[in-house]
Amino acid sequence: MQPIARVVDESPADLRRAIRAGSVRGPTTGRAPGYLQGNLAILPRTHAQDFLAFCVANPKPCPLIGVSEPGDPRVPSLGADLDLRTDVGAYRVFRGGPTYERVADLAGVWRDDLVGFVIGCSFSFEESLQRARIPVRHIAAGRNVPMYVTNLETRRAGPFGGPMVVSMRAFSPADAIRAIVLSERQPLAHGAPVHIGDPAQIGIPDLANPDFGDAPVLEPGDVPVFWACGVTPQVAIREARPDLAVTHEPGHMLVTDKPAEGASIGP
Amino acid sequence: MQPIARVVDESPADLRRAIRAGSVRGPTTGRAPGYLQGNLAILPRTHAQDFLAFCVANPKPCPLIGVSEPGDPRVPSLGADLDLRTDVGAYRVFRGGPTYERVADLAGVWRDDLVGFVIGCSFSFEESLQRARIPVRHIAAGRNVPMYVTNLETRRAGPFGGPMVVSMRAFSPADAIRAIVLSERQPLAHGAPVHIGDPAQIGIPDLANPDFGDAPVLEPGDVPVFWACGVTPQVAIREARPDLAVTHEPGHMLVTDKPAEGASIGP
Repeated sequence: MQPIARVVDESPADLRRAIRAGSVRGPTTGRAPGYLQGNLAILPRTHAQDFLAFCVANPKPCPLIGVSEPGDPRVPSLGADLDLRTDVGAYRVFRGGPTYERVADLAGVWRDDLVGFVIGCSFSFEESLQRARIPVRHIAAGRNVPMYVTNLETRRAGPFGGPMVVSMRAFSPADAIRAIVLSERQPLAHGAPVHIGDPAQIGIPDLANPDFGDAPVLEPGDVPVFWACGVTPQVAIREARPDLAVTHEPGHMLVTDKPAEGASIGP
Repeated sequence: MQPIARVVDESPADLRRAIRAGSVRGPTTGRAPGYLQGNLAILPRTHAQDFLAFCVANPKPCPLIGVSEPGDPRVPSLGADLDLRTDVGAYRVFRGGPTYERVADLAGVWRDDLVGFVIGCSFSFEESLQRARIPVRHIAAGRNVPMYVTNLETRRAGPFGGPMVVSMRAFSPADAIRAIVLSERQPLAHGAPVHIGDPAQIGIPDLANPDFGDAPVLEPGDVPVFWACGVTPQVAIREARPDLAVTHEPGHMLVTDKPAEGASIGP
């Protein structure tokens, strides 16, 4: 709960301004609490329609909270001042291959045919767990959430498809039930989980070795609960290999003016 | 879904009238769908205040949907015509001991000091599972739901206390998540479950051997989910040993005019 208490008065616009000015460069976890943060994906117009269809067909891993007009780096519905080129602390730029360049802004990257997609993330859900006094083991341990590639297939749209990636949080059984109920109320933060219990059923051979993030923390008697994860569209984009794609650096989210509670789905 | 389809036009008042006339004598499962049915407990006034406190302190096993005035067999809030002496198909009468007499009405039993308590049951929740096309294994198999005495303790009130009894339904993990979400919306049908997964954690030594009801039905990969059960107050009453107590015969519920959806908690 510490980060929430520390920055409780920070507005999303203040935080974006600080990120834009370069005075805030770290992860956005726990900052501007109560507001949706988003995964960012920027693609050329040639790929935009397929990617939009992919998000709509896979709302649990890809809950769309905003889409920009081609060439326009603004998303007014998410913040009057919001600028996709400068308001994320660190970007990854992919140029048709699996490797990427890490940049602090998109000054030399932005093109007139680029479309930005903002996809909900789990931060606001984790805030609600903490408000409900449900222990979130990886946060308490100061680790990243463990993430796994599963045998659950996304619904394909054009070149975008592939496996669903999930994040795992472990709870006592009673807390797992409460976490399921709370998460279902936040469809823009991936909604209800996609699996509970035996990891092998969704193609995870070894819970101790996640594909992304840090090793999991489980207490005796814990039940693992698996949510669709915003890394899913990143994997789909990497496999679709557009000539240019930009994503945020993990943890460095796009902070929006959209309240986390009561927000409705859709751009 | 068969019973629901068959009697979809039956009103609660029609069904109560048929039970009162003796033309319907069987269990009420699946009848007058869309309306709350209740567990019934009738106790002398001397025990009523403690039992009321017990229900309020334990809303998951004992969600109160109605209480009568002492000596008055009516509960107008649950049905203008409703009569606790005649509107249940079969009653159990306990007279200070563990054995009971089964009677078809309370003509020779009712006293001026009796208070009736109507407590929500899981039927309306099971209806919502079926509407959501979530298989309910014991219903498909034509069995009673399996019930277990647990090591979870109720909150004591006067002579009323003891262990929580739970019912178990097994689902695929994805359906278990949906069932949790659906049940949480029905606090008068026991609400969200109290446990998921390992039965031993709540003191159930052998899932295959329930304390009440029939043996469970599990498919490969199923997760057992445990809900607080309306048998809990019956066990508490049996151990409190009032000089007179009446309950319904299992499955023979009190049918009310209260819609299952959107009903609020409280008498």
